[in-house]
Amino acid sequence: MNVEVITVGDELLIGQVVDTNSAWIGSKLNEYGIHLSKITSIGDSKEQIFKALDDAFSTADAILMTGGLGPTKDDITKKTLAEYFGCGFKTDQQTLDRVKELLSKRGIAATDINYKQADVPDICEVVQNYNGTAPCMVFRHNGKVLASMPGVPFEMKALMEESILNLLAKEGNTLSIEHKTIMTIGVPESMLAKQIEEWESNLPTNMKLAYLPSLTGVRLRISATGSNGAQLSASIEEEVKKLRPILQEAIFSENDETLQEVIGRMLKSSNKSLSTAESCTGGTLASTIVSTPGASRYFKGGVVAYDDEVKKSLLKVNPCYLFTDGAVSQKVVEQMAEGVRELLKTDFSIATSGIAGPDGGSDLKPVGTTWIAVSTPNGTVSAVYNFGNSRERTMVRATATALNMLRIQILKDL
Amino acid sequence: MNVEVITVGDELLIGQVVDTNSAWIGSKLNEYGIHLSKITSIGDSKEQIFKALDDAFSTADAILMTGGLGPTKDDITKKTLAEYFGCGFKTDQQTLDRVKELLSKRGIAATDINYKQADVPDICEVVQNYNGTAPCMVFRHNGKVLASMPGVPFEMKALMEESILNLLAKEGNTLSIEHKTIMTIGVPESMLAKQIEEWESNLPTNMKLAYLPSLTGVRLRISATGSNGAQLSASIEEEVKKLRPILQEAIFSENDETLQEVIGRMLKSSNKSLSTAESCTGGTLASTIVSTPGASRYFKGGVVAYDDEVKKSLLKVNPCYLFTDGAVSQKVVEQMAEGVRELLKTDFSIATSGIAGPDGGSDLKPVGTTWIAVSTPNGTVSAVYNFGNSRERTMVRATATALNMLRIQILKDL
Repeated sequence: MNVEVITVGDELLIGQVVDTNSAWIGSKLNEYGIHLSKITSIGDSKEQIFKALDDAFSTADAILMTGGLGPTKDDITKKTLAEYFGCGFKTDQQTLDRVKELLSKRGIAATDINYKQADVPDICEVVQNYNGTAPCMVFRHNGKVLASMPGVPFEMKALMEESILNLLAKEGNTLSIEHKTIMTIGVPESMLAKQIEEWESNLPTNMKLAYLPSLTGVRLRISATGSNGAQLSASIEEEVKKLRPILQEAIFSENDETLQEVIGRMLKSSNKSLSTAESCTGGTLASTIVSTPGASRYFKGGVVAYDDEVKKSLLKVNPCYLFTDGAVSQKVVEQMAEGVRELLKTDFSIATSGIAGPDGGSDLKPVGTTWIAVSTPNGTVSAVYNFGNSRERTMVRATATALNMLRIQILKDL
Repeated sequence: MNVEVITVGDELLIGQVVDTNSAWIGSKLNEYGIHLSKITSIGDSKEQIFKALDDAFSTADAILMTGGLGPTKDDITKKTLAEYFGCGFKTDQQTLDRVKELLSKRGIAATDINYKQADVPDICEVVQNYNGTAPCMVFRHNGKVLASMPGVPFEMKALMEESILNLLAKEGNTLSIEHKTIMTIGVPESMLAKQIEEWESNLPTNMKLAYLPSLTGVRLRISATGSNGAQLSASIEEEVKKLRPILQEAIFSENDETLQEVIGRMLKSSNKSLSTAESCTGGTLASTIVSTPGASRYFKGGVVAYDDEVKKSLLKVNPCYLFTDGAVSQKVVEQMAEGVRELLKTDFSIATSGIAGPDGGSDLKPVGTTWIAVSTPNGTVSAVYNFGNSRERTMVRATATALNMLRIQILKDL
């Protein structure tokens, strides 16, 4: 089965909203072995919607649309679909009841605008949206299926998981395709490619390797296609076995686990605790750690020591070092890590101190210069990096590098 | 001039990477008054690239492509473009020199794979990419222009800003279109629509209003088209003047400023300082505040008090309250706010304590229950919310709600 996604909204084209729905839909379809062949984003315009529908119906077996179903005047998808299929409107009583109930629960007085959300094209089948007031509509046309869903991500996600994915799986013959992702950190893409060149050349012809570089590492995705899913997984595993001794500790996960999830798992299983002391990352490190459910079992807390006074008063950083070496220095970052480990009584701690920019750089310490320290029961290690001149990138890269430094230390210590 | 974007990469279709490039390109084109009419994402496949190019050349005046230019075998865009245009290859000496220099700077040994990046289709014009090893290639075909850029966001952004945007502006007749975005928070979309219904109906016919709801509020985008840009801006301003008294303090910005930027501006101009004490948001609040350059002028720091011990020892929360009321309670969150304000000696402070989930909820305090407190020189205020059962959404919504609570207090106090 060949699926195409159409996302509708002027806001996508002028860049006010990033289309995250398509990526999420793509990952879900992939789990179900359904092939997504194209994503098209267009504006809230009848002509553009008509053209996109014509194109998609000519090549796809199923079409998933999101967006343009809100209660306000700029949302025209529903009206345009009725016109495209040449049908009239009906009121969907379940939607109407739900709209009334949802609004009264939220203490919002319902208006005509809300009630009109229950009017739908009379040839569609309505799938109830329990998270919002816009209906999800399924159309059948020339033996193909089209589902129009709201663009609000959590409403769309619930509709996909509760109904639409099953509907697609039932309709289509699913392909046999298996993927495995090897997550690496610390080795640049071209160096990685050189290291695994021979291994890559010897991959079976039904396997494909993709390099997915990001600010926080390079993911290697191995995909295999064939008739038997279980056999494909086994032959991927054969290849991964050969890859492990080549890349060694550069591999931090083999199942799409994030670095913070890997660290969480290691700390939980060894019953160890963690704290953070952040200057330049300003809370990004702590918030990345707690993004993992269950983080309270090992993460005690942290100090965001943005101001030097906080470094001195809470983390007991020696004022002399702040004066002689500056806040962005090995001595200060190590004292920050040791200070927070003592303050919050944890087994491990991480500290960051850097110049996120755009101001504050110098010839000796240009913008991007970042010291990271990890303190463990066996001592404190630290290193300096330059993460470039973007504030946002520095925070993300410093956080990933700090987490990886901790991972390496835990591997050594435990 | 009508532009289309084509992003290439299997990783986009299986959802391993979110296409943020298109949104960024859309916002930049919009600044230049250039109309982006469609975004298409396809896989690393010759057939799909050929079909997308055929489609785009039939409707667009210019095409911007990103992705598929990496050094590794899965990247086929360059080869496919040469085939599409039926041309051969040449070596671009400047690219070759740059590849050698860049790699030697980074201490990476260059390989054949790297050198091959300097080979480009012989009919293209190369625009130098100073941030990476993949070349940017400009093709001219049937009076239309196509630019193929690397998919790595910061490389693509630099190429767009330094070369491609100017090239497009020179080629095309730019449209006169003006936008203004009014940022609101605290009023649900349908209630907002009801409040401004009359105002919206009376907008001039050349103006269009779009509602852009997100987890953190609703943005209202007013767009006007016409022949004279300055006149359009003036007439948008006329309409905004009528809107302000209707929405009042629900409007937090009129120029795409974020909530944290607005607060930063208010604190800087009044020379006041801020600190945070976070439980459920785990550093997200602090990291959101410091995402604004110059935050060090007003943000002293914060405590991530994830564990109750940290609430007691650092923030001086009364252990009795933790026992009788629990960590997620009015008394505890107010003491957290007051505790950090005293600890870090700031004028204002914000505290959060909630149940981010998926575990830890109860009938009385279901997952999503979040207390937020703001402490000021004039006292402490607090409120309780329920942000639903998604960990990620609770963190984002709690952060935005907390920042807005602070904004309202600063407006009252200053």
